[in-house]
Amino acid sequence: LDEDDNEQIYRLVQPLHTADIADLFELTPRDDRGKLALALGDLMSADVLAEINDYVREDIIDALPAGQVADLAAQLETDDAVAIIEDLEEDEQRAVLDILGPEDRAAIENALSYPEESAGRIMQRDLVAAPETMTVGQLIDYLRVRSDLTTEFWEVFIVDPHYKPIGTCQLSWILRTPRSIPLGDVMKRDQSLIPVDLDQEEVALRFQKYSLISAAVVDDEGRLVGVITADDIAHIISEEAGEDILRLSGAGEGDINEPIIDSYKARVRWLVANLGTAMIASFIIAQFGAAISSMVALAVLMPIVASIGGNAGTQTLAVTVRALATNQLTQSNTIWAIKRELYVALSMGVSIAIIAGLGAGYFFTNPILGAVIAAAILCNIVIAGMSGVIIPVILDRLDQDPAVSSSIFVTMITDSMGFLLFLGLAVASNIV
Amino acid sequence: LDEDDNEQIYRLVQPLHTADIADLFELTPRDDRGKLALALGDLMSADVLAEINDYVREDIIDALPAGQVADLAAQLETDDAVAIIEDLEEDEQRAVLDILGPEDRAAIENALSYPEESAGRIMQRDLVAAPETMTVGQLIDYLRVRSDLTTEFWEVFIVDPHYKPIGTCQLSWILRTPRSIPLGDVMKRDQSLIPVDLDQEEVALRFQKYSLISAAVVDDEGRLVGVITADDIAHIISEEAGEDILRLSGAGEGDINEPIIDSYKARVRWLVANLGTAMIASFIIAQFGAAISSMVALAVLMPIVASIGGNAGTQTLAVTVRALATNQLTQSNTIWAIKRELYVALSMGVSIAIIAGLGAGYFFTNPILGAVIAAAILCNIVIAGMSGVIIPVILDRLDQDPAVSSSIFVTMITDSMGFLLFLGLAVASNIV
Repeated sequence: LDEDDNEQIYRLVQPLHTADIADLFELTPRDDRGKLALALGDLMSADVLAEINDYVREDIIDALPAGQVADLAAQLETDDAVAIIEDLEEDEQRAVLDILGPEDRAAIENALSYPEESAGRIMQRDLVAAPETMTVGQLIDYLRVRSDLTTEFWEVFIVDPHYKPIGTCQLSWILRTPRSIPLGDVMKRDQSLIPVDLDQEEVALRFQKYSLISAAVVDDEGRLVGVITADDIAHIISEEAGEDILRLSGAGEGDINEPIIDSYKARVRWLVANLGTAMIASFIIAQFGAAISSMVALAVLMPIVASIGGNAGTQTLAVTVRALATNQLTQSNTIWAIKRELYVALSMGVSIAIIAGLGAGYFFTNPILGAVIAAAILCNIVIAGMSGVIIPVILDRLDQDPAVSSSIFVTMITDSMGFLLFLGLAVASNIV
Repeated sequence: LDEDDNEQIYRLVQPLHTADIADLFELTPRDDRGKLALALGDLMSADVLAEINDYVREDIIDALPAGQVADLAAQLETDDAVAIIEDLEEDEQRAVLDILGPEDRAAIENALSYPEESAGRIMQRDLVAAPETMTVGQLIDYLRVRSDLTTEFWEVFIVDPHYKPIGTCQLSWILRTPRSIPLGDVMKRDQSLIPVDLDQEEVALRFQKYSLISAAVVDDEGRLVGVITADDIAHIISEEAGEDILRLSGAGEGDINEPIIDSYKARVRWLVANLGTAMIASFIIAQFGAAISSMVALAVLMPIVASIGGNAGTQTLAVTVRALATNQLTQSNTIWAIKRELYVALSMGVSIAIIAGLGAGYFFTNPILGAVIAAAILCNIVIAGMSGVIIPVILDRLDQDPAVSSSIFVTMITDSMGFLLFLGLAVASNIV
C-alpha cells in the first residue's frame, strides 16, 4: 500500500475468499482502509462489506458516496443489506434508501420497522413456499422455470391459503420422493415457528435447542414472512456468549475496533462505580484505625481476605451468569443451585482457611491471629459464593441483564465483608 | 413423581419435543432422574439422551444396563452416539461396543480413534457423494431408489474416482436444474474442506467465517470421510465462547450440573494460586509497616489503588481474550492494539486519578496524600492496561490458552504494583 502499487495489490487479493478480504480490511491500519478499498476496485464487493466488523465498515462507508453504498446494498440479501444500513446515520439512511429500487427499498424499510436485534432484522425475505396439494414433480418443474426465485434455500415451507405455515419439507426429503407424491405427504407438521419480534438471543437459543438449519418466521397473524438460516445464527451465538465476559468485567462492547472514546466512556463508568465500592471498604477500614496502628500485621493480612473472597465470588458469578444465559438455571432449580454453591463454597472455604490460618499463625507466631484470618476467610468465601449466585438470579428475575451489574455488587460485598470480618474478629478476640 | 403416578407423567410428557424432555431431566433433582427415566418408558428415546447435558446423562446411563445403552446408541447418528459413548468408562465402552452391530461398532470405533474435540469426533459419516459426470436426473433417480441412504443431508459432494471432493452442490441448485445437466456443471468448485483432525474450535470459526451450512471432512490423503453440519456447530460455538468467561474467572468447566467434588477441585486450585499472589502483595505491604503504623490513612486508602487497578486489568483482559478467540487480534495488529489500550488506560487513569486524588486530599485534609494516591492510581491503571493486553498475547504466542492463566498474572501485577506504588510514593514524598 505504501508504494501505491494498486495493480500488485489487486493481483495479491484476487484469489482470496470474500471473508478473507474482510479480515484483511480489519487488520489494515485505520488510515489505510480507504486507500485499500480504492485499490481493490470491483473486488470490494457487497459480500466483503457484509462480513466486515461493524466499526471498520463505518470507516469504509463514510468514505464511499451514497450511490455506491446503495449499489452494494442492492446486491445483498435483505438481512445483510439491513445490517449495513441500520448502522448509518438517519440522513445517510434516507439517501441510500432513495437510490434503491422500489422493491429493495420496501423490503429494507419493512425490516427496519422491526425492533433492533429482533428476528425481523436478521431474517431473509426470499424463500420458497408451496401449497400442500402440490406434488413433488410440480414443485421441481416450478423451481426449474421460475428464474426469479432465490437459489439459496434449504427447506420448502408448506403454507395454507392464508399463507400460514403448516409444515416444512427438507430438500433432501423432496429429492428422495417420487414425482407423484403431494408435498403434504412429505412434509413434517411439527416445526419451530419464530415470531418476527422475538429477540435474536432467543432465536439463537431455539436454533441450538432444536438443532435447526433454517426456520420460518411468522408475523402477529401467523403468516409466513421470512426465513432465518443457521449461518446467520452462528455469529449471533458467538456474540451473545462472548458479550457476557465483557459485560461481567465492565468492558462495554469490548470490540478492539471500537473508537477509543467509546471504549473510554463504557469502561470509565465502571471504574467510577468501583471507586465508590472501594470507598465503602475504606470507610470500614477507617473504623479500625486504632487497631491497625497498634498491630500492623492486620494491614498486611487484610487484603488477603478481601482478595480471596472477591475471587471466589467471581467464580460463582461466572458459573451463574452462563447457566442463566443458556437457560440451565430457572425458577425450578434455583434453590438446588444455591445449595450446590453453598457446599462448594464451604469445602473451598475450609481448605483455604486452614492453609492461610496455619501460614499466618506461624509467620507472625500468633496462633490467635491465624484463627482470626481462618475464620474471616471461611465466612467471606461462603458469603462470596452465596452472593455470586443470589445477586445475578435476583437481577434476572427483575428482567435486568445479570452480566451487567452483578460483579459490582458482589465485589462490594466481598471487599467490605472481608475487611469487616477480619478486623472485627481481630478486635473481638482481644489480640490487638 | 412423588405420587409414583407413571401414567400421568407419561401423558404430560408425551406432547413435548425431545429437546424439551431433555430439559426436563436437567431440571429434575438428581435423585429423581432414574425414576423419571423409568416412568417415561419409550419416550426416553435416543434423541432425548443425545440432547441432555453431559453430567446429567452420566447419571441416567449409569442407571441403565449396557444393553439398553447400546440399543439407544444404535438408533443415533454416529456423531451423537460418539458423544454418548466417549463419556463412558473404558470397560462400559467395551460392553456397549460389543453389543452394537458390526457396522455401527466400526463407525464409532473409527470416530473414537480421532483426538477428542476434533472434527473426526463431531462429523457425521452418512452422506451423499456423486461423480461429476452424473446428471441431475440420474442423481434424483438414484436417491429415490436407494432406500438405505441418509435422509438428512443438505449438500451433495462431488468426488473424483479416488473419493476426493472436487466440488459441492447445494440441494436447491440441483432442484432448480434440468435433468440432463451433469452435476459437474452445477457444482461450486471452491469449498471449505475440514481436515479430520482439526480442533472443533477452529471448525466452528470456519463455519462462522464462511457462513457454512455443511462442510466436507477429509482425511490426511484428502479423501471424503464425513460431513459436519451447522446444527452440530451451534452448541460448540456457544460452549467455546462461554468457556472463556469461566476460564478467566477460574471456574473450571463451570457447568451447574458438574459434581460438587469436581467443581471444588477446579476452583480451589485457583484460590490457592490467588492466596499465593495475595501473599506477595502482603509481603510488599509488610515492608512499609513503620509508615502504616505512623499514618493509618495509608492502610485505609491502599486497597483503593489495588482494586481499581485490578478492575482496569480485568477489562482489558476480557477484551483481549475475546479478540484472540475470534481471530481479530493477530501478529499483524498487536502493536496497534497495545497502543490502543495504552490510550484508553491513560485517559481512564487521568480521570480516576483526579477524582480519587481530590477526594482523598480533601477528606484527609492532606493535599500531598491526594497527589500520592492520584499518581499511584494513574500508574497502576496504565500498568493494568498494558499487562491486560501483553500477558494474554504472550500466552497465546506460546500456544497456551490465554483465558486460563492470564488473570492470575494480571491480578498479581496490579495488586503488588498498587501497594508498592502507593506506599512507596507516600514514603518518598515525606508525608509519613
